This record gives sequence, structure tokens and C-alpha cells, in this order.
Amino acid sequence: MGFDALIKNRRSVRKFTDKQVDIEIVKELIRQSTFAPSAGNEQPWKFIVVNDKSMIQKISDESKKNILARVEANPDDYAKKYRGMLRKETFNVFYNAPCLVMILGEAGLKNLLVDCALAASYFMMAAAARGLGTCWVNLGTQIHDPAMKKALGIPDDCDIVAPIILGYPEKIPPVPGRKEPDMLKIIQ
Amino acid sequence: MGFDALIKNRRSVRKFTDKQVDIEIVKELIRQSTFAPSAGNEQPWKFIVVNDKSMIQKISDESKKNILARVEANPDDYAKKYRGMLRKETFNVFYNAPCLVMILGEAGLKNLLVDCALAASYFMMAAAARGLGTCWVNLGTQIHDPAMKKALGIPDDCDIVAPIILGYPEKIPPVPGRKEPDMLKIIQ
Repeated sequence: MGFDALIKNRRSVRKFTDKQVDIEIVKELIRQSTFAPSAGNEQPWKFIVVNDKSMIQKISDESKKNILARVEANPDDYAKKYRGMLRKETFNVFYNAPCLVMILGEAGLKNLLVDCALAASYFMMAAAARGLGTCWVNLGTQIHDPAMKKALGIPDDCDIVAPIILGYPEKIPPVPGRKEPDMLKIIQ
Repeated sequence: MGFDALIKNRRSVRKFTDKQVDIEIVKELIRQSTFAPSAGNEQPWKFIVVNDKSMIQKISDESKKNILARVEANPDDYAKKYRGMLRKETFNVFYNAPCLVMILGEAGLKNLLVDCALAASYFMMAAAARGLGTCWVNLGTQIHDPAMKKALGIPDDCDIVAPIILGYPEKIPPVPGRKEPDMLKIIQ
């Protein structure tokens, strides 16, 4: 698949078949994602793989609870638009995906967000190149319960940057329109 | 080129031939970079293209001046390790690349850094897929001079996230070793 086809196949996927993802494939995608560049070649990314639907369900419940509490405390919170959805008991923030990969790193590192986003981008394209679907689920970053953090191996000094769901897509959604690039200036 | 070959060809390039990059190719790379995902599909990225070495030299001079001033004012600044290099008059922070593309957006947008980093990742891979070389040059974000900002079309409310140099590589550097992925936990 050429690059132009690849970027059109890398779609945010929210409907997956029941097929599990082989753990060796997940590890290979993670290995490929570490070929991303990073500031000063520091490679600050760390990874957690949850290849188990019941654990993913628990993380979804924890995330929903924490985001709803935040929205109730601050009605101007950016997540307030998700309130109705988050209140539905059947709503799983990870769309019942069979696998969840979290990219995280030491909180406070100057380039952590950018470096983890670059690795995430590689991960999502590597998955698309193999016919797998992904979606970066920002709602999945809010894990506060100490017992759950321990079960997941999240160190106290780390922030989750990119929770990415992974699975075999029921179908590849069509490419939604892209705005024309906003070119502020061309100097030549 | 398959994805595994592509990510090994996407190297940070700091030595370029004199060949100019056709502006239509630059526009096509930018178009491809807008296929990156973004939070809420907001596509907050904007672009500036400087396909002119003399202007790039001026931006380098402005960046060096501002970073040096910051380091002198705060000896603990993270950029202090670059002080010796920045003081050299012949040092161009953009490595004399023939083209510079800046990805920027409205300061304060919650996901600006991540969204622009995703677009930057697409841009760098799209360039590699065509045999072009890139390098994300963080030192190039410090443009303060109002006249220069105006000349470059940088709006007052925008932050430069990703200054990326672009050109034909003198050679593709070898892939430096990658750390083994830091897998904190695998749950299955």
C-alpha cells in the first residue's frame, strides 16, 4: 500500500469485529511506533497493553465516573458535550474494542505530549498498514483509582497521553472531507 | 515502499543538496498531512511555507538571538546546552535547508500541540515517501520580532508548534538504535 492509500485507510474506527488481536502483532506495532522521532532522541514513551475486554470495560467505567464528576464540578468543562453519552450505562468509551494500548510517560517532561503523539501517529499508521483499525480516545486518560493504576502498572509520576483502541474494523469508514489547508503565507 | 521501509527511511536529515523543492510538491505534502486525525476532527493546523534560503537565514538569526537572550536570563533554561552552538555566527538552526514549513495554530487550544504533532508526523512521512528529507527543529519556534511575524503571516494569537525543514538529503543517515520498548504491563 503506497503512502497516499495508507493515509486514507488510517481512519478512526469505532466498530470492531470480535476477533482478538494477537499479542505478537501488538508488540510489533509498538516496536514500529518507536521509530518515530523524538526531541533529543530521548524516546520518552512507555506502553501498556490491555488485550482483555473485561479490564477495558473497568477502565471505561473509571474514566466515565471521573469525567462526569469533573463536569458536574465545572459546568464549563470542555467535556460537558459528552455528558449525556457518559451517563448512559451501556456506553463504553472504548467502543467495545478488543484491545487498548496506552502511550504514556513522565509527567512534566517538556516534550512529552509531542513525542507521544508522534509515536501514536506511527502506531495508528502501522496498524492501518496491516488492516487493523485504531482510534485515539481522549476520554480514556482519566484513571485516578490507585488500585486500578497499580493493576495497570501506571507509575505515579506518569501521565497517559494517548489511549488508543485497536481491533479488526467491521468496515473502514469513508474519509470525511478535509478542509482546504489553511496556508497563511507562501514565501518563495 | 512498505510501511516498515518507510519508517526506516524517515530519518532526521540535517544535510541537504542545493536542489530546490518544487512548491507544488510542498503543497501536496501539506495536503497529505491534513489527513492526520485531530481531536473532534477540528483540524486546527495552519501552515506557512518559506521556500527561500535568505528568509530562512533571517528566521535562524532571529531564533538564535531570542534563545540566547533567554538562556542568559535563566542559566537553568533547557536550551543552555545549545549555547556554544548558538553563539557561532555560521550556525544556521535550519541547517541551510532550502525549505522551511511551519505548522502552527491558535495558542490555548486544548489539543493544539498533539494535533499539530500528528500533522507533522504525516508531513515527515509523506516527504520520506518521496525521497525528501525533513527534521523538526524546535529551536525555530522563537520568532518574536513583530516585523518578521508580519512578513511571515504569523497571527498574534498563534503559536508555532512544528518548524520542519525540508529538502533533498545529501544522504539518508543510518537508523540510530532504538531502545527496547518500555512495556510497563501486558494484560491479556
